[in-house]
Amino acid sequence: MKTFRFEKTYQDTKTSARTGVIHTPHGPIQTPAFVPVGTQATVKSLTSQDLQELDTHLFFVNTYHMYLRPGLDVIVKAQGLHAFMGWDRPIITDSGGFQVFSLGRKKFVSRKNAIDSQDPQNKDDQHESPSLVQISDDGVTFRSHWDGSKHVFTPELSMQYQWTLGSDIHIAFDDCTPYPVTEKLARTSMERTHRWAVRSIDEHEKLAEKSRQSQEKYQALYGSIQGSVYEHLRKESVQFITSCPFDGFAIGGVAVGESKAEMKKILQWVTPYLPQDKPRHLLGVGEIDDVFELIEHGMDTFDCVQPTRLARMGRLFTMTRQKYAQTYENASYEIDITRPEYKEDMNAIDATCPCYTCTHASRAYIHHLFKVRELLAYRLATIHNISFMNRLVNEIRLAIQRNSFVALKKKWLGVA
Amino acid sequence: MKTFRFEKTYQDTKTSARTGVIHTPHGPIQTPAFVPVGTQATVKSLTSQDLQELDTHLFFVNTYHMYLRPGLDVIVKAQGLHAFMGWDRPIITDSGGFQVFSLGRKKFVSRKNAIDSQDPQNKDDQHESPSLVQISDDGVTFRSHWDGSKHVFTPELSMQYQWTLGSDIHIAFDDCTPYPVTEKLARTSMERTHRWAVRSIDEHEKLAEKSRQSQEKYQALYGSIQGSVYEHLRKESVQFITSCPFDGFAIGGVAVGESKAEMKKILQWVTPYLPQDKPRHLLGVGEIDDVFELIEHGMDTFDCVQPTRLARMGRLFTMTRQKYAQTYENASYEIDITRPEYKEDMNAIDATCPCYTCTHASRAYIHHLFKVRELLAYRLATIHNISFMNRLVNEIRLAIQRNSFVALKKKWLGVA
Repeated sequence: MKTFRFEKTYQDTKTSARTGVIHTPHGPIQTPAFVPVGTQATVKSLTSQDLQELDTHLFFVNTYHMYLRPGLDVIVKAQGLHAFMGWDRPIITDSGGFQVFSLGRKKFVSRKNAIDSQDPQNKDDQHESPSLVQISDDGVTFRSHWDGSKHVFTPELSMQYQWTLGSDIHIAFDDCTPYPVTEKLARTSMERTHRWAVRSIDEHEKLAEKSRQSQEKYQALYGSIQGSVYEHLRKESVQFITSCPFDGFAIGGVAVGESKAEMKKILQWVTPYLPQDKPRHLLGVGEIDDVFELIEHGMDTFDCVQPTRLARMGRLFTMTRQKYAQTYENASYEIDITRPEYKEDMNAIDATCPCYTCTHASRAYIHHLFKVRELLAYRLATIHNISFMNRLVNEIRLAIQRNSFVALKKKWLGVA
Repeated sequence: MKTFRFEKTYQDTKTSARTGVIHTPHGPIQTPAFVPVGTQATVKSLTSQDLQELDTHLFFVNTYHMYLRPGLDVIVKAQGLHAFMGWDRPIITDSGGFQVFSLGRKKFVSRKNAIDSQDPQNKDDQHESPSLVQISDDGVTFRSHWDGSKHVFTPELSMQYQWTLGSDIHIAFDDCTPYPVTEKLARTSMERTHRWAVRSIDEHEKLAEKSRQSQEKYQALYGSIQGSVYEHLRKESVQFITSCPFDGFAIGGVAVGESKAEMKKILQWVTPYLPQDKPRHLLGVGEIDDVFELIEHGMDTFDCVQPTRLARMGRLFTMTRQKYAQTYENASYEIDITRPEYKEDMNAIDATCPCYTCTHASRAYIHHLFKVRELLAYRLATIHNISFMNRLVNEIRLAIQRNSFVALKKKWLGVA
């Protein structure tokens, strides 16, 4: 039985912003929603209970990482990723493609300087044949970032892996176009993504059929839209991908190095073609101005490591603009807790924040923990930044329901 | 008003083991009690709330570390260490002496090979004048392990620092005798400890008088007993220190390198001289066999970094003996979660343990977190090992009340 369903609850009249509920076998997700990333089956330093207490509804896990460590055999023994992590709310997994391409490419670049610079073979088309990632129409061969062992991902295998993980939302295996890229290569990559989308659906339907027979829970599949920064490619991609019977859609190939202006254009090109009755996810984006932008363009969920990564660097978000900030940039809404002015500051990070950190620890205490590099620093900071993101998105959700999204955006960013 | 008081509740008839309650301005401590160490104002990876949920009653903090970072000015601004850490139960601080001596000596040894080996001045008496620690009868001059800056601790300053911290139990400033040490040096060191004990009391009483006038809470002072591994020195020290008006007594100079047999002898020499109506603390000891030994000799509280340090290495305690263990050693009651046999083990670390870790995470999940070096690994492991220590001590406390301490010790260690 298809227990996956999107229900739109409010539509902003001035923009494409909307609120809704994604119903999944592991419960509902109120949208828009910020989705914290637990790359290795944990949002760094937090337990599943912490995330529940922070009112997080959806947890993002990387298939690539689960496949390599602990390995899918362990997840099978645990009877799925939910049980393995002790998390009984919805999970979204990616296809593994992004890591396969980007971690492989990173290694290639670092080795290139040392070894491959005299190798004319790799000069013209780095994307097509970097030494640690081999892409063919069948799939991708890559080496583990842990031990260099060789592995293969194909659309079929990616689907099988995600069914094994048992996540509520899967993403079709795509060819992650690098940035910057020529139009020619962007097209080659996009066309491969489209062929892989069809193969992903075929495999997904086989697995869904098996699961129907064994009365297992339905797992949804999102198609991934590529096309880099080229308008006609993005439009071609969204039209093709939305013509396929996906349960929802993800915009990929963003946050790969393009500018914020380019990302905004991609949203403008793509989102008008997305069907209203299906959920949309933006992959890997989540700075404060991005959040307003993506929600304004009708995206429902978005994952991003930035809030938790910044937390571990001591950069903590605040609901009010900091007085030393001169501009309306994201930095206006954060403090760097490692700065000397917080050494004796006995206030909470944000007096209005209900999180454990703000109700139990002063800026001075957190400053101290960072200065002496105590593990607790990262935990307290992470709790707060996720609390902030959830509060920000809640505030936006309420504004949409009151038809005041544009005013709220202006209040936060200074521009409508 | 003297709100500090020890109440003995049960006395084992076969040994010196006893149960009791130490009443402090921040509430009672049921004894015997394991005291986790929060060197830098946090038990590594845990919040104060975690410790409360684990039923920890007393928290050990190092004066030396607080003095250097965050610095006592910050603690003053926070209105004391309790408020700074968000911990409203009792705190015990040490005198700073142990760190001043041992961190300084450590640096000296490592520099000695490089610089001082041709220096005849330092050949004969390392204890008396290592290059980074200068000891005189007045006190100790040392260099910060953070930045090499120069600082001084004296008995008077140590008392002032501990009053500033606002801990419930202070320890007199002592000369921490190194190990191994000649009898001559052990005596020199002990006699200095005795002179410093008197000065600690004088200063403490001045500070207590001030505090009475301002209606502040009374803070207790424990005397520290030294004498190394020499019977007559230990006896001389306990007789001198217990003749002084201390609120309780700490045995120092153990866990500095001596054998378990030597530590046992020290307990045998010293404890008969300790008054029954005052609490006793053992500094820096806490392996499972030690716990039985020290409680058997009538100690009430003991602090140790070992359970939390082992946790961060993946060595997790179990209430039942592990089958691969051949002996009655401490290792019988622990598993090394990083070993491959736990990769697919879906059981809790200890099925009988009520801690968050054991009720939410499998051995396989914790194994995975350690293997990929996730911060959550250290937290889950630390929670469990503290839970174990508290359960062990609870079990011992109940056994004393039922007059079955010796039987319980035999059950755990195989020897009475």
